[in-house]
Amino acid sequence: MEYPSKHIEHAVTEIARLPGIGKKTALRLALYLLSQETSQTQSLSDALTDMRKNVRYCPDCRNISDDGRCRICSNPKRDHSMICVVEDTRDVMAIENTSQYFGLYHVLGGILSPIDGISPDDLTVDLLFRRCRDEEINELILALPATMEGDTTAFYISKKLNNSSITISNIARGVPVGSELEYTDEITLGRSIANRTKF
Amino acid sequence: MEYPSKHIEHAVTEIARLPGIGKKTALRLALYLLSQETSQTQSLSDALTDMRKNVRYCPDCRNISDDGRCRICSNPKRDHSMICVVEDTRDVMAIENTSQYFGLYHVLGGILSPIDGISPDDLTVDLLFRRCRDEEINELILALPATMEGDTTAFYISKKLNNSSITISNIARGVPVGSELEYTDEITLGRSIANRTKF
Repeated sequence: MEYPSKHIEHAVTEIARLPGIGKKTALRLALYLLSQETSQTQSLSDALTDMRKNVRYCPDCRNISDDGRCRICSNPKRDHSMICVVEDTRDVMAIENTSQYFGLYHVLGGILSPIDGISPDDLTVDLLFRRCRDEEINELILALPATMEGDTTAFYISKKLNNSSITISNIARGVPVGSELEYTDEITLGRSIANRTKF
Repeated sequence: MEYPSKHIEHAVTEIARLPGIGKKTALRLALYLLSQETSQTQSLSDALTDMRKNVRYCPDCRNISDDGRCRICSNPKRDHSMICVVEDTRDVMAIENTSQYFGLYHVLGGILSPIDGISPDDLTVDLLFRRCRDEEINELILALPATMEGDTTAFYISKKLNNSSITISNIARGVPVGSELEYTDEITLGRSIANRTKF
């Protein structure tokens, strides 16, 4: 496709580097910004640069936090003997939204994926193992994606903590609440029967 | 939803002002940028600001053009007696891609929409009428969206040019090439029968 302006072409190329956004959507977004006040584009790019420059991470759980130790780690009312291990910040937000968990978190910053070249060195697993060693942790809840990469990561972590006395658990996999059995895929349904719980 | 950082919250708010992007997608994009090099965010925001500041419009057809008169208007090989009226730059790109049209364009910069408060003053229609009066135009092809707003705009333009000798035509509406009749909606199919062409 030939663009009428090299400025637009450059912007489209940059926008289309974002995940899930192709060149057509990028062009639509670029033309939208052109149709709005200059100030909107300015505040968007300022907000992005500001975020990238100023976001800090909690030294304990590696969750995003504006000022040092995060609100969860520094809350004495939370159960400090429990760590829920998640892939990224969105998972922390999702679990916090349920109001069903009152322990701490550990944000890995990704999951193991040999295909994408993501090894343990790219994750915060060493910090997790240090927390398990140095702090009084009783239980580690693995809340990782139900994919091969998620399972690999869970296996790696549980293997490394083999010799410790920490209980390691996995979040339950099964038929989602409110969904019909006939529309559930067979692997989930099969697992939900194998891992049935007492009524 | 409670965000772990006000910088992220601000970025998410700004990203979610783009059309078709909700808060969840915005958060996904923000976290993606955080997981990449700082330079990527910097080049994205630079590209956006640069585009918004430096994009210019062709004084004749109002299409986007980096340097004054656009490549189409300044091309002596194009048919300067024909103007194809479109909503925005994307439509020019789409029609140019077909390699089926060799006249000029006129970019309205939107279409009439009383609900969204878009009146003739917000479009480049006055410039279009001036071109029709001052230049030697034989035909005006209306290539506007097949919506109520598109039809209103087409009606408005044709009404205003009532007394001129310019032929006004509409692009053909009908069954898309390569598609099955049974999957075509009834309004399109009905119109394609009413407006049948000689075999």
